Amino acid sequence: MERQRLTTVSFLEPIQESLQAVEDLMRRQAAEHHHDLNAALQHLLSAGGKRLRPALVLLTGEMLGADRERLLTLAAAIELLHTATLVHDDLIDGALLRRGIPTLNAHWSPAATVLTGDFMFARAARLAALAGSVEVMQLFAETLAIIVDGEITQLFDGPGLADREAYYRRIYAKTASMFVLATVSPARLGGAGEEALAAMRRYGHDLGIAYQIVDDILDFTGDQARLGKPVGSDLRHGLITMPTLCYLEHHPDDKPLRAILAGESVSEAEMEGLIERIRASEAIAQAAEDARRFARRAMEALEIMPEGAHRAALIAMADYIVKRDF
Amino acid sequence: MERQRLTTVSFLEPIQESLQAVEDLMRRQAAEHHHDLNAALQHLLSAGGKRLRPALVLLTGEMLGADRERLLTLAAAIELLHTATLVHDDLIDGALLRRGIPTLNAHWSPAATVLTGDFMFARAARLAALAGSVEVMQLFAETLAIIVDGEITQLFDGPGLADREAYYRRIYAKTASMFVLATVSPARLGGAGEEALAAMRRYGHDLGIAYQIVDDILDFTGDQARLGKPVGSDLRHGLITMPTLCYLEHHPDDKPLRAILAGESVSEAEMEGLIERIRASEAIAQAAEDARRFARRAMEALEIMPEGAHRAALIAMADYIVKRDF
Repeated sequence: MERQRLTTVSFLEPIQESLQAVEDLMRRQAAEHHHDLNAALQHLLSAGGKRLRPALVLLTGEMLGADRERLLTLAAAIELLHTATLVHDDLIDGALLRRGIPTLNAHWSPAATVLTGDFMFARAARLAALAGSVEVMQLFAETLAIIVDGEITQLFDGPGLADREAYYRRIYAKTASMFVLATVSPARLGGAGEEALAAMRRYGHDLGIAYQIVDDILDFTGDQARLGKPVGSDLRHGLITMPTLCYLEHHPDDKPLRAILAGESVSEAEMEGLIERIRASEAIAQAAEDARRFARRAMEALEIMPEGAHRAALIAMADYIVKRDF
Repeated sequence: MERQRLTTVSFLEPIQESLQAVEDLMRRQAAEHHHDLNAALQHLLSAGGKRLRPALVLLTGEMLGADRERLLTLAAAIELLHTATLVHDDLIDGALLRRGIPTLNAHWSPAATVLTGDFMFARAARLAALAGSVEVMQLFAETLAIIVDGEITQLFDGPGLADREAYYRRIYAKTASMFVLATVSPARLGGAGEEALAAMRRYGHDLGIAYQIVDDILDFTGDQARLGKPVGSDLRHGLITMPTLCYLEHHPDDKPLRAILAGESVSEAEMEGLIERIRASEAIAQAAEDARRFARRAMEALEIMPEGAHRAALIAMADYIVKRDF
């Protein structure tokens, strides 16, 4: 599993114990609750992700001298918020397989799914409030608003224009905004000044954009078993991501793609053909280069940060995210 | 409409302008957003309730000298939180008519409903964070957790035992916890000491319990057109509320009721008959007396509060809530 791979990579050495404490803190949230809910939450947390956001909180906060207990609470809060948005997302987009495991939505009633998401929101808010900072709570609430607004825009307005600016805006709301939360709020807890806050905002933003571009590339280049969904599933849902944007720039007349952009439906064979053409094109390498550009900017933002194992780990994380075999 | 009735009652005179400012603040939350979402929110807010919670925030906060701007933000935050829980509730219990108007759920996709609720949660959290108090944020998050936990318990465990303690616990989670939020957090903003905080907690709790008992009585005694749902709808959903509990104490052998308590289904005619018997019994007056007992305790809690128009209004509100023609 990816998670194990990441949490055993060497650059996370300085926060290994803290990451485990965050894990325990998250799992305890449901321990005293109803058996089925507890089981569902343990399931979600076990399936769940690479703990990138907690790692960002811990590395940034420890680098800037924030109180450890508050960082643990904040890290757990942000990961729970992330998981809560995934739970409601599953209800919304009907993605019955996420990360290769059946989601709650496939097993449960919509009611149970909504409430499980709400439960995680509530626990996330409680943990965030325990971090004891008004600024952090404001940032937390603001981030939730950005994420939900992004989902609403997508639901009401559809996939939107096939242009880079719209794409960056969408993935900022969807992904990078929470990376910003995970870097700026621990910096706040560490009492960082405006310059350091701006640098950590830049780092979180650019890292988040890079991460999402990579994710969007993997949607084309990954294999179905590992993705837990068909290759090209974004495009199948009418969602135009970076690989498709790059492909479009070189092949503005591709017929099935033009049809999709015009909101017309295409046959399964046309869709398969288009996905194959994108996979085989230079668009994948170009999208990867765009992700690396953001990762480099993220690293540059760290130049003013205190040297040491934590800064080195943040740099290594940016490198790790884009250094994948597509 | 009930709302107009309440907001024009004389005891709200001292906060009339503030209530209007809260209304404007809530409506502005969606003004810049997508047209459909904005329309939905205006619809929800127009349909929405008697603004009891904002009135409690304003009366308590002004009585205890809290900053007016913060009170307005807090009042809007709590009412939005309340509305958000109603939106998700509608999705959960499928109550397609609430307060006699079609809910979002009847018009919209589940996805749009979940996101509209999430949007209101996010805006509520943002406004609450703007009130600028860590204690208030903690209370806010704690209350959300209590409400969601209550809904989860009900969903997973079913209606539960037919006993008063279980009933009081359930309506605390469902209703009184948010009344407590609406009285304790403005007291916090006003810098109240422990004794005053405890008094306002008592008042909020007992008022909320009284309010919910009255609501549960109206479910039996109201007429279908005004309720927007069939008479006795709680019992039809297997939910045992105060009138049924009182009836059960005097008629422990009522056959259809015993069947319902045993989790068995009853015929429509049996259900109609049972509802009629409860309506016609002394249970209604007994439940009303229980509500009045809580309302009196709520009033008594205010004895240590500063005299004046605001305290008088809080007393009048407790009186108003239980002084209805059943």
